[in-house]
Amino acid sequence: MSIRALLNIEHPIIQAPMAGACTPALVAAVSNGGGLGSLGAAPMKPDVLRAQIQKIRALTGRPFNINLFAPGSERFDADAMPGKAARALLEKYHQELGLGELRMPSGIFGPAEQQLEVLLEEKVPVISFHFGVAAHHVNAIHAAGLKVICSATTIEEAVHLESLGCDAVIAQGSEAGGHRGTFMGDFQRALIGTMALVPQIVDAVSVPVIAAGGIMDARGIVACKALGASGVQMGTAFLGCHESGIPGVWREQLKASSPSRTTVTTVMSGKPARGLANRYIQDMEALEEAPMPYPLQYALSGAIRKKAAQQGNPDFLAMWSGQGVGMLQELPAAELLKALVTQTRLLLAELDN
Amino acid sequence: MSIRALLNIEHPIIQAPMAGACTPALVAAVSNGGGLGSLGAAPMKPDVLRAQIQKIRALTGRPFNINLFAPGSERFDADAMPGKAARALLEKYHQELGLGELRMPSGIFGPAEQQLEVLLEEKVPVISFHFGVAAHHVNAIHAAGLKVICSATTIEEAVHLESLGCDAVIAQGSEAGGHRGTFMGDFQRALIGTMALVPQIVDAVSVPVIAAGGIMDARGIVACKALGASGVQMGTAFLGCHESGIPGVWREQLKASSPSRTTVTTVMSGKPARGLANRYIQDMEALEEAPMPYPLQYALSGAIRKKAAQQGNPDFLAMWSGQGVGMLQELPAAELLKALVTQTRLLLAELDN
Repeated sequence: MSIRALLNIEHPIIQAPMAGACTPALVAAVSNGGGLGSLGAAPMKPDVLRAQIQKIRALTGRPFNINLFAPGSERFDADAMPGKAARALLEKYHQELGLGELRMPSGIFGPAEQQLEVLLEEKVPVISFHFGVAAHHVNAIHAAGLKVICSATTIEEAVHLESLGCDAVIAQGSEAGGHRGTFMGDFQRALIGTMALVPQIVDAVSVPVIAAGGIMDARGIVACKALGASGVQMGTAFLGCHESGIPGVWREQLKASSPSRTTVTTVMSGKPARGLANRYIQDMEALEEAPMPYPLQYALSGAIRKKAAQQGNPDFLAMWSGQGVGMLQELPAAELLKALVTQTRLLLAELDN
Repeated sequence: MSIRALLNIEHPIIQAPMAGACTPALVAAVSNGGGLGSLGAAPMKPDVLRAQIQKIRALTGRPFNINLFAPGSERFDADAMPGKAARALLEKYHQELGLGELRMPSGIFGPAEQQLEVLLEEKVPVISFHFGVAAHHVNAIHAAGLKVICSATTIEEAVHLESLGCDAVIAQGSEAGGHRGTFMGDFQRALIGTMALVPQIVDAVSVPVIAAGGIMDARGIVACKALGASGVQMGTAFLGCHESGIPGVWREQLKASSPSRTTVTTVMSGKPARGLANRYIQDMEALEEAPMPYPLQYALSGAIRKKAAQQGNPDFLAMWSGQGVGMLQELPAAELLKALVTQTRLLLAELDN
């Protein structure tokens, strides 16, 4: 089955869920244009999530996607925690930025089980997961008549996801910005480039494969089609859109960056993710001790990110970015989508001549 | 100019130079089939290199390519050397394998300046470099009426190579097996996936771009064409060919591997390179001290590699491999090339329907 038929969309283009960057306006613009808009909901409290879904529904009647991090991934053992050096550094930053005491947030992130309940109640057409998914959640989503897709960063993960009953698999190449979806084995070994990952996953599973990582324009879309992908998921490309909700300083840094500015680091959230290198990453990585576990590292560094965004200071932001960053365009999402569709058609015709 | 016109070849397919794996038979089979066969000559003494060129010429009248590591990259300061722990571990391996004392080889590798002189005297049609190239070498090659191409792993490197006068640039994506061509900045930041690297280099330079990294079949060739590449360079795909000179155990390990088995490591040669993980890499990476500099680490571990190949023991081999490894085919090089050309045509026609 094609990804278009599966997800009931006109164009096989998924705007990647990016927590903190996707607004309901961006999601709706992509869905209204015939693609699949997505909301990254991992850090949202259940009531905030429900309100966001209602905002999206007010703007579009088309299918859209909500992304969660795998239920359970937000749990951590507060007593057995490393990261003392990371906490000391965060305290130093708090002083530098004139922020108050560093506080342990209560009930941080999700919980994902409750987020999923909201999605089922709201009958969100497409639910996607990062960091894997449990079989009983796949079953619950199907029982509600909804579709479930999940990211794979290796062939082994893709085969596992198909065995759980996922409707499609997102092949997340190493070029991709944001969190690595790796849930089996070492994340370093799972940094597999899109060019190699997509055809090997296509060969290994029967469900449709959605290519992600480094795709910024029609060239990438046609390339992934050639590799056997049924559709593409594009993140960084949509960060530049007018509707993207990123701070101005993040946008400016993206516009000035080449791919060698991006790095995969665990110090931003506690889990590996690709973003633009800055002072925070350099300082944190220089510590001999590991950062705090996800999501504690992320939650405790939230105040400095907020302050840095207000100040237009790139030093402390989590500026997620894929390696396609040098191809960023700034335009309304509807126009980007239209251009992608038109140029894909032209390029396909041109290549065959 | 197209890469076919530039290099005087029929099909824009370059078999990647792989020291230790390319035989004159492989090089000639690819060139005779209308592609560009390549010999990885970095470790060869000048007289051995000259003999190899004569063997290739006896088998083909078509253009071929000889690859060198940048002159100068084989120099190291023997007095200021780290790597005591690495040497101790090599000594332990020597004992385990029943080899004699670990000896410092004399006059190891190249020197590349002398290798280049041989190539100029022999009028080798295409000369390629890894780890950059000097302007006066580019000029000397052009003065001899020959072509020079070089690998780039970042946009910045590609722009630099064009400014030196290179006739084409090889965009080496992070998927590629063997040595990383990085010569400016940190190699970790220069691990850019082919999907992102190729179009950004195409946008940045005017010379033809040859895509490399993760390309194993017609799907990869068409994908790279869509990204704007003028041709492709394929390494791992040719490792499986009957004419490839790799030990049987390396071949068997490739056939049994998925991409998450590959890793980029500096412990094999002293410079970062991608290959299949094994006991040697695991042990060496566990040392707290850095390995010896290139090419000393490579030269001093030569005896254990030779013994391991004889024993059919994968533990101590340098089994270079790209992330496309799961798509490996075993057939004669001429058949592989013919299939690539035919399937590329079919896929291009199919995509436009």
